[in-house]
Parts: sequence; C-alpha cells; structure tokens
Amino acid sequence: MVKQMKEKLIIGDDLGGTTTKLAVLKQTGEIINKWEIPTDVSSEGRNIICDIAKSINQKIVELDITNGDILGIGLGAPGPVNLENGVIYEAVNLGWQDKYPLQQLLEEATAISTIIDNDANCAALGEMWKGAGNGAKDLICITLGTGVGGGIIANGDIIHGINGAGGEIGHVTSVSVGGAPCNCGKTGCLETIASATGIVRLARGKLQNRQVDSKLHHSLIHKGKITAKDVFDAASEGDLIANDVVNEVAKYLGLALANVATIFNPEKIVLGGGVSKAGDTLLKPVKEYFEKFVFNRVAQSTKLTIATLGNDAGVVGAAWLVLKK
Amino acid sequence: MVKQMKEKLIIGDDLGGTTTKLAVLKQTGEIINKWEIPTDVSSEGRNIICDIAKSINQKIVELDITNGDILGIGLGAPGPVNLENGVIYEAVNLGWQDKYPLQQLLEEATAISTIIDNDANCAALGEMWKGAGNGAKDLICITLGTGVGGGIIANGDIIHGINGAGGEIGHVTSVSVGGAPCNCGKTGCLETIASATGIVRLARGKLQNRQVDSKLHHSLIHKGKITAKDVFDAASEGDLIANDVVNEVAKYLGLALANVATIFNPEKIVLGGGVSKAGDTLLKPVKEYFEKFVFNRVAQSTKLTIATLGNDAGVVGAAWLVLKK
Repeated sequence: MVKQMKEKLIIGDDLGGTTTKLAVLKQTGEIINKWEIPTDVSSEGRNIICDIAKSINQKIVELDITNGDILGIGLGAPGPVNLENGVIYEAVNLGWQDKYPLQQLLEEATAISTIIDNDANCAALGEMWKGAGNGAKDLICITLGTGVGGGIIANGDIIHGINGAGGEIGHVTSVSVGGAPCNCGKTGCLETIASATGIVRLARGKLQNRQVDSKLHHSLIHKGKITAKDVFDAASEGDLIANDVVNEVAKYLGLALANVATIFNPEKIVLGGGVSKAGDTLLKPVKEYFEKFVFNRVAQSTKLTIATLGNDAGVVGAAWLVLKK
Repeated sequence: MVKQMKEKLIIGDDLGGTTTKLAVLKQTGEIINKWEIPTDVSSEGRNIICDIAKSINQKIVELDITNGDILGIGLGAPGPVNLENGVIYEAVNLGWQDKYPLQQLLEEATAISTIIDNDANCAALGEMWKGAGNGAKDLICITLGTGVGGGIIANGDIIHGINGAGGEIGHVTSVSVGGAPCNCGKTGCLETIASATGIVRLARGKLQNRQVDSKLHHSLIHKGKITAKDVFDAASEGDLIANDVVNEVAKYLGLALANVATIFNPEKIVLGGGVSKAGDTLLKPVKEYFEKFVFNRVAQSTKLTIATLGNDAGVVGAAWLVLKK
C-alpha cells in the first residue's frame, strides 16, 4: 500500500537519554508508523548510531519500501547543535565526546540524507507545524520535564544563537540570591523550580519546614517518595502545602514567561512535557502571574496554552526539518 | 558633485519626541549630510509630517539633486509599528491618534518611497550594519536613555512579534515585589532602574535614606537637581552613595541582560543611549553580574559592548531599511 504512494516519506527521530522515538511520516506531517528503541548509552554511546540505523533499515523492509522512498531523516538531539555541519557540541547524557559528527555518522550508517537540530527546538517546530502552534510564525515552546527545555521560533525560524545555546529558557536566572544549585553549574535557574525535579524539591522543603497536615506527607511516608504529579493531584484537592508549592512554581514560571514574552511578543507560548499534564491546575495560576508581570501590548496578543502533540512533538518537528531543508 | 554619482542616495530619518534627526546617506551607509529639525508635537502632531517633508525637499534642492536620485526614505518612529501596512500603532509622545498611517502620509508628502520601523529597532540595525555589531546577524541593542528601549536581531531579522511589541526589554519585570511605577502602567520594569530617570530616582532615594557625606548631596543642594551623569561621575571618584546606586543598576541590568542572552545567545549585546556614555564605570560592574547570572555556553560566546554610532545609529538603521526592502 505504502509502495503505491508517489509522495516520498520522511523519518523523524527524537533521540533521548533513555529512549529513542522514531516515526515514518507523510509530507503532510501525518504519522503512518511510530516505534521506540532503548538508547544504549554504554561504551561512551558508540552503539547509538548503529542501533538507530538498524532499526530504520528494519522498518523500511517491514513497510516494503526502499531507501529511495525516503526523502530524508530528521533528528532531534539532546544538546546544542551546529546547524551548518551537523555536529552536536555536547551531549552529556549520551556519553559522546564533544563535537560529535552526528549528522555525518547517521548519513553514513543509513545512506539516507540526514538533518539534525536540538530536541527542544524540534518539539517547538512540531507544535508549530501540527500542534498547539497552529502555524504561528512566532512561537515559544517550553518543555517542563525532568529539566526545562525551550525552543523559540521567530519570523518562522528557530533561534539558535551564535553558540547553539539559543532558547535555553530553563537556565534563565529566576532566583538571584540563594537559589538552588542547577545541573548547569549556576544557581537559581528556572529549571530548579519549574521542572518535575524542582517541584519535588520545593515540596520536600515545604514539608520539612511546615507542620501542617498534608496528603503529601502521606505519599512520602507510604510510597517513600513524592512526584510532581502527586503535588498537582493534592493541589487540585485543596491540599495547603501542595497549593503553596504550585503557587511558587506558578509565580516564577509566570514571571519568566512574561519576561520572555515581553522580549518576543510571540503569538503563542506552548507548555509541553510531563509537568504540563497538570493542565489547568498549573495553567490557571501561571496565567495570573503572567498577566501581572507582562507588558501591556503583549498581554493583548500573546496566548499561553498547553501542547497538544504530547510525545510526538519531537518526531514531527524533526520531520519538518527535512521538508524545510 | 553629488549629481555625478551614479548610485542613488538614501534618506534616513530618526523621529523623536523633541528632535527629528535626518541624514542623506550613500548605499554603503556613509553619511554625506546630516541635520536636525525640532519635532512639533502641538495640534496632535499634525505638523510633523509636513515639517519633515519640507525639510527633505529643501535638502534635495540644497544638494542640487532630484527626487529621482533618492532610492527611498527610511524612518524610525517612537512606537510599535505594523511593518506590513506602515502604520504606527501608538505614538504617545507625538500626539498622534492610534494606528496613524505614517508611511503612507510621508510618501504622499514627499513623493518618495518610504519604509518605517520602530526607532529602537532602527538603532539596532544601525549598530549591526555600521557600528559595534560589525555585521553580526544575532545582535541585541539596548538604548539606555530617558527610557530603556530594545532592538533584537536574530537570524539577521528584527524581532517584531505579533503585535509590534517585540524587543521591549525595558519592560521586563526586574523587581517583582515593591518595584517603582513605570510609565507603561506596570511596576518594577527594568526601565524604572536602568534609565537615566531610574538612576536619578534610585540616587534620590539613597540620599534620603543614608546620612553618609556624598558629592551627590552637594550637586542636589547647589544645582537643585542631580543627573545620571552626576551619579556616574561621583561613582568614578569613589563616592559611596553613587557607587551603591551604580552597583544596584548594574545588578538588575546585568541580570536582565544575562537572561536575554540565555534566551538568544546573540553574538553581541550593544549598550547605547546617554547612560552608556558612562563607559567602563557602568560596563565593568554590569559585566560582572552578567557573567554571574548567564548560562555557561552563552558566557563563552556572547560579548557585551558599548555602541559606537552614538546619535547616528537611528538614521543609519533607518537607511538600512530602504536597502533591505
């Protein structure tokens, strides 16, 4: 069936530190097949390219098509990328040495033309193309997961910056004095507050410091841990400490988004990642702080919304790279 | 002499609330003639366009050239602009009603093709083209004057945003609790701290609250007022209160610039406007805070520097609009 299609297909690849998501897409952005493989970070990540290439080759056989039916591979990588030569500057989570020639190696292993970009940028492109962005040419996408990633599209193009570090909204300094340490080496980054990890850290701190009865205490005692989801669940049921945590997260996230929006005046700011699944429990207070802190003309025109593509945003945006190329 | 040139000339116009700067430029960006006229904001600004057109027509006669020798007029206007139709959304300082069709009216009055943009954006384009930007395609220009303006160039294009409010770095919220009121209606904007007005406000506050002997006290008593220049002059001579003010300005400005740079990773951030004439007295402490608060990869690649075009940045950038068109 696929073989009879005249239009070439695209392969989208979202390379993560634990799992690599892959998809075969039409040029309309429609996913016709998607799958996942584990990312093998042993041996300094030497098997990663091979595993991806093998998996793509198997899928091509399985779909009864040939390399000639593929327009190209787009890949989102977890680190800053040099667009001109397809090198990933650093990829701490994968074990690769600095300036790893990712694009070239994947092209050699698959014999298919390949293009790469940063994963948060791909998520933003995915949401722009087929998700909550709805074609907006000025769009910011924030991924609230284990960390906080950002992708910024202005005038229809991704902001990469001079050293591949454009869009690092997670490392905006939110707490200038006495902030928590961040993995990046600084303190007080937005990521230390608005990531799943940051939310749990805030909740643990407040549980220690306040002797109010809270569902979160029970979670901690019964499960031995709490998650960001526990915090949002408890908050939506009126738990005092949980609401206190959500309010603090919303205050710093609302302020950071207001400042980013005041600088860009994008059409939309799209919140994605696991933490965004809290929906209105998070979005409502974030909107209140956003409106308080944002420049008036921006408040009139920039909309805050939740991502709609979920885990597919990365592969869809990676596929878009191939079309844009 | 001019008449013998084969290459057409450009007129650059920097329309301010008090003075309108004008220049005739070569297509290389070289200014061959520049002059100023007062901006007449009486009668709801109805004379402004006429005054500019008359002045341009006189200059054309004076230079012994014709309209046909002019490639176009570029104009920087003090307000958010709609690029597509050449309308200025609002220009509070000029008295114009909202959505004033500036481009069309100036074209009709001069019979010369005209293009407009926001004045802070023009200053950024001027610095990019012929000033401290030195051709950088990712550049942020901050004008520290009576207010704080910003122009952002990413991928070689100005960031306008969806409602013309892109680049409003002066209205980033720097003080989230208890900040001073800003003209925009918010409180705690960067403009309330890092503008000339903000610096004087901070100095007056510190003079009231501290009984340390300070040169600024003498300025206030003898001249009846202090200026931002007085503060920087006193600081460079070791005055305690003046240094305290400069440190506070540098802290908030350094933090705001670090956060903007973390988001954009521009090649350069260029500080212009009257306050930037303080040079190293301002730049040195700003750099220290910038480096403390900025993301590591950005610290390695984004440079802070002082503008070099001075008052010419606006007319040069406005001329660039004509070439880009």
